[in-house]
Amino acid sequence: MDIEKVNSMDFGEFMDVFGNVIERCPLIAAAVWSKRPFSDLGDLEKHFFAFIDGLPLSGQEGVLRCHPELAGRELQWGRLSAESQREQSAAGLQNLGAAERLRLSELTAQYRARFGFPFVLAVRLSDPAAAPRELARRLRCPPAQELRTALGEVKKICHLRLADLLGEQP
Amino acid sequence: MDIEKVNSMDFGEFMDVFGNVIERCPLIAAAVWSKRPFSDLGDLEKHFFAFIDGLPLSGQEGVLRCHPELAGRELQWGRLSAESQREQSAAGLQNLGAAERLRLSELTAQYRARFGFPFVLAVRLSDPAAAPRELARRLRCPPAQELRTALGEVKKICHLRLADLLGEQP
Repeated sequence: MDIEKVNSMDFGEFMDVFGNVIERCPLIAAAVWSKRPFSDLGDLEKHFFAFIDGLPLSGQEGVLRCHPELAGRELQWGRLSAESQREQSAAGLQNLGAAERLRLSELTAQYRARFGFPFVLAVRLSDPAAAPRELARRLRCPPAQELRTALGEVKKICHLRLADLLGEQP
Repeated sequence: MDIEKVNSMDFGEFMDVFGNVIERCPLIAAAVWSKRPFSDLGDLEKHFFAFIDGLPLSGQEGVLRCHPELAGRELQWGRLSAESQREQSAAGLQNLGAAERLRLSELTAQYRARFGFPFVLAVRLSDPAAAPRELARRLRCPPAQELRTALGEVKKICHLRLADLLGEQP
């Protein structure tokens, strides 16, 4: 799919394709629609990122809270968005042993209790063993720094999903 | 449900209950969660409204675009959110004659073409005959004024949904 195709879409088509590049935040794609036409993938992506950066703190926390738990019950129960399901499965998070799953769930619960949003990680860019290590590391970060890190992960996920959709090398 | 109950909810419960008081914008409820505890219904509502008011123009247009068409195919096909389905059905929009439905669909298409978002109306506050009349009137308004009117309707819908949930007289 090239950018001319994107610019020729009607709103319904645009939402069907890009509605979930920011996980469970269709409002953001619906807002980015105002910025057409887009010159290329980078331009489209820039508008997604700018919208997130322009949100108040509560809104940025809201974006993070719309993300599912990593290796959580929604993965086990098949209730993730199609994109998250693919990403978490490909990262091997569906095949964790009981001990690993328990360890991860303890850490993600601690993380949520500390920061008020779930642990977000672009799992396609890390190996399965890295997730609990990264979680343990980020759990110790100051909240303001961790908010920035987590939003950075949201943007990496968005970048990968957009590159998939437009068939470009991420 | 009283406000103490709301303040005692965990995030998942809060989203199950309030996730759609702004139609198809769970991000907004997820952001309002940052503002707990709430002193009363008015305080909770104030945070929803303030979030919308603080959005850039593209975001406010995005909120409107997340709304369904009035008496559109989603109503006929039963694909509306539960709240919209109730509201549009109770307003008699499911039982329009063919001529009335055609007239409404022509007007809503004109409206979307002119303003770039669907016609939003708090149908519980108007009678079925008023919808096409109001649509024809608002079609002639300047875009900046119409955006404000439409966001006012979003807030009326939010107010009614919140009042329903908290069992208060709207």
